[in-house]
Amino acid sequence: MKTLEDLLYGVLQDVYYAEKQLLKTLPKMAKQASSKELSQAFLAHRDQTESQIARLEQAFEMIGKKPRAKKCEAILGIIQEGKEVMEEASDEDTMDAGLIGAAQAAEHYEIARYGTLCAWAKQLGKPQIARLLHQTLEEEKQTDELLTKIAESSVNREAMTA
Amino acid sequence: MKTLEDLLYGVLQDVYYAEKQLLKTLPKMAKQASSKELSQAFLAHRDQTESQIARLEQAFEMIGKKPRAKKCEAILGIIQEGKEVMEEASDEDTMDAGLIGAAQAAEHYEIARYGTLCAWAKQLGKPQIARLLHQTLEEEKQTDELLTKIAESSVNREAMTA
Repeated sequence: MKTLEDLLYGVLQDVYYAEKQLLKTLPKMAKQASSKELSQAFLAHRDQTESQIARLEQAFEMIGKKPRAKKCEAILGIIQEGKEVMEEASDEDTMDAGLIGAAQAAEHYEIARYGTLCAWAKQLGKPQIARLLHQTLEEEKQTDELLTKIAESSVNREAMTA
Repeated sequence: MKTLEDLLYGVLQDVYYAEKQLLKTLPKMAKQASSKELSQAFLAHRDQTESQIARLEQAFEMIGKKPRAKKCEAILGIIQEGKEVMEEASDEDTMDAGLIGAAQAAEHYEIARYGTLCAWAKQLGKPQIARLLHQTLEEEKQTDELLTKIAESSVNREAMTA
């Protein structure tokens, strides 16, 4: 049987796996993006992901565990959808729209997981872990908002040239 | 090669599958929840999911397609994590915390997908579809916020009785 502490350890492993997958995937998405702004956003978020992985390693240490990654089917499913877009998009605008959609699905998965980790850390009387991971939560929300802005500015640009 | 219209049709099928899975899963989660408030929230969201499925069927009709569900690995991964919590939680508070975490991962997956569908529908000059699915998007956000409130009130209750 699992305690809340076990659940926290499990989701830490899950999101550690997810971040490592995204670290590999973001440069590929940056390469495929045709909008320079979008490409730069993916590369900037790749660098941010490195610090987020370091924070997770700190969190593992704070609960006295070694960092461990556990296969996460949800993020693999999301990344797979992104790959299909990269292989099959018929033109540059479709490619960018598809990449933004896939990236926002990944961001929202992380927003949910970090939100849960912060809530459980507080519930377990570990406010330092909650504070640490709250920084990542805010970064993921900002990335999601930036992607929405890029999507909207592209729609407006197309409408103006149509 | 796929156009943006094809991507829209693909994500409609993906989220149609996800909603149907959640329709089956939410009553099980309601049964397992020990907090009455949480149990009622799951049942209310189950009913809401029925209308959300009906809206998706309308959206399929608006693009001249038959409603079709396409297996979505992301939501299956999220639901699987929820099942593990239901089988393994050591006590009632852990069960409720785990159920809330799983439900919020599902909500965020849907928030991302409906956000993308609304953006693409606008981009494709289909504002009726964007308006229709925006209603669902708002419901998913409200459900996520309600779950956060329930989680926080439970933490506060525990702190008071500790």
